[in-house]
Amino acid sequence: MNISRKPTRVIAVGGLAIGGGHPIAVQSMTNTRTDDVAATVAQIHRLEAAGCELIRVAVPDQASARAIAGIRAGIHIPLIADIHFDYRLAIAALEHGAQGIRINPGNIGGAKKLTAVVAAAKAHQAPIRVGVNSGSIEAGLLQKYGYPSPECPDALIESALNNVRLVEEAGWDEIKISIKSPDVLTTVSAYRRLAAVTDYPLHLGVTEAGGLIAGTVKSSVALGLLLSDGIGDTFRISLTRDPVEEIRVAWELLRALKIRERGPELISCPTCGRTGIDLFALAEAVERHIQTMRRPLKVAVMGCPVNGPGEAKEADIGLAGGHGTGIIFKKSQVVRRLPEERLLPEFLAELDRIEREV
Amino acid sequence: MNISRKPTRVIAVGGLAIGGGHPIAVQSMTNTRTDDVAATVAQIHRLEAAGCELIRVAVPDQASARAIAGIRAGIHIPLIADIHFDYRLAIAALEHGAQGIRINPGNIGGAKKLTAVVAAAKAHQAPIRVGVNSGSIEAGLLQKYGYPSPECPDALIESALNNVRLVEEAGWDEIKISIKSPDVLTTVSAYRRLAAVTDYPLHLGVTEAGGLIAGTVKSSVALGLLLSDGIGDTFRISLTRDPVEEIRVAWELLRALKIRERGPELISCPTCGRTGIDLFALAEAVERHIQTMRRPLKVAVMGCPVNGPGEAKEADIGLAGGHGTGIIFKKSQVVRRLPEERLLPEFLAELDRIEREV
Repeated sequence: MNISRKPTRVIAVGGLAIGGGHPIAVQSMTNTRTDDVAATVAQIHRLEAAGCELIRVAVPDQASARAIAGIRAGIHIPLIADIHFDYRLAIAALEHGAQGIRINPGNIGGAKKLTAVVAAAKAHQAPIRVGVNSGSIEAGLLQKYGYPSPECPDALIESALNNVRLVEEAGWDEIKISIKSPDVLTTVSAYRRLAAVTDYPLHLGVTEAGGLIAGTVKSSVALGLLLSDGIGDTFRISLTRDPVEEIRVAWELLRALKIRERGPELISCPTCGRTGIDLFALAEAVERHIQTMRRPLKVAVMGCPVNGPGEAKEADIGLAGGHGTGIIFKKSQVVRRLPEERLLPEFLAELDRIEREV
Repeated sequence: MNISRKPTRVIAVGGLAIGGGHPIAVQSMTNTRTDDVAATVAQIHRLEAAGCELIRVAVPDQASARAIAGIRAGIHIPLIADIHFDYRLAIAALEHGAQGIRINPGNIGGAKKLTAVVAAAKAHQAPIRVGVNSGSIEAGLLQKYGYPSPECPDALIESALNNVRLVEEAGWDEIKISIKSPDVLTTVSAYRRLAAVTDYPLHLGVTEAGGLIAGTVKSSVALGLLLSDGIGDTFRISLTRDPVEEIRVAWELLRALKIRERGPELISCPTCGRTGIDLFALAEAVERHIQTMRRPLKVAVMGCPVNGPGEAKEADIGLAGGHGTGIIFKKSQVVRRLPEERLLPEFLAELDRIEREV
């Protein structure tokens, strides 16, 4: 299970290099009104704290384009403007400081307008994401190939490549590509084929993936398959939720694949008829607590005092609840035995000590 | 992306056939006290309603073993007893009606006791799951191979195969195998190697996967990779949560891979600066509503009235909210335009009509 990353070119969004072996970048998108600078900056700060490395904002009107200058001044990560329908918004966003733009070639109004956008992007040294969605592919390609499916995702790929060519012909090659579908297998098959025919960096994602559970499952399956193939240079988990949850899922995914790591990992048992305490409450309290920690660490919360330390051998530190008494263990050695009511506070204090040791 | 399922033998747990091309069975485990028959039966009823097809209960003592008869009388799916440490509990569970048992060979007390358990299983025609966990592998194997890792998961595999041989030698071959680790890549590499050397049906899972998000990501990545390799005949998603959530995740996973389908799928956008309504509340209300529906259906909840029906072309039915007014669409055609306050109730009523048409 060694992941060998597919070589891609390098582009830079603001100070962040993407592609060519650079760390796979975690990104999200705000859902505040972009023209509400204070709200947007506040949301981006929460996203930064969770580990977001690149942020996209929707630019549906000129007021939003103008707001970009103020947003950029308040945040610490590169900002990308997301444009649909009106190419003038792309140009305005760039003029107000967008460090990259995402356009959906299927709805930007044709080759001529795209060319005008590219000229502005080049003038501002801003990379362009050619972001094709299965829902907005050009009619001619749908006629030629049919709606994208796992067996024939070609309309997505040809749409992306055609539009990439237009950007190149306008003299700009700071490009990344995404071809998103709400369907997991279509996503996987489309990116696999695309990766075989381009060396531009790829932005991965499943679009309209759904709520927390469905969206997390769909994104994890699709991106798990692609990232373990070595495909993907940046990605967004798309959830109908607070975007901070998207970042949490993103980092869990990178950790699961041993690609990148950030903060502690929680190992916790599902409880069963042997569990004598309210483990869900304990696990949630520990999970909340470790979200503020940066140090990679394996933290276990186990229901069963007999089995716990043994089953959670891989944990750096853990607790196991019992009947009236609990234990704290480190590397499967019991280090303390405590009355149950003191177990959680002492455990959290111990975690804080470890974090301070960094 | 065609999944070609690895051929395995068929075993039967109660009336449920597992392996050999039979549908990949969704299972979970109760976390009530098993000796509390009423609570356990009530939880299993909730799990059955969510789509659980096989249920496991912990049997930590003789009272739990005795409770199995009462539990079985109240439920509609096959019941498996989960045994650790005391082989007599396995025998008692079988005597009280367990239709299968799961034993962890590493802690059942050696070959002689295992043989006694096998004799009882054979007498009751109950399959045995040889369920090895990385946390409880025999010391000798750990010495020989080291702790299971993605590069060398061999201790898991050899432990499983040794114990399978003991079951076979005791004259019983109704066997399935699991080799679980909390580590995603170890899980994937272990099952891939195991699948290459055995044709017994395999039970998949990531153990101690963690809470809702981490556990869903880890399980989706590991099982997404394995199931798309054609490996796995039944599985459990293990979450530190209400087990009903495990079943939801399980079905989302099967749906994402187009292996099996159950009830409607929600397609919903993540919202952005273009969204003019409280889409999260709408999406959650729709998600809750469709959980009671059985008919497979693609349901879209989109924030953007201009883009919505187009981006959700794949949806059978959808709504898109706007500013003060919303639309209901079917197959990307707008069929109704409504004031926003009537959008949700009318949409749910429409879903109910569709469900009744079945």
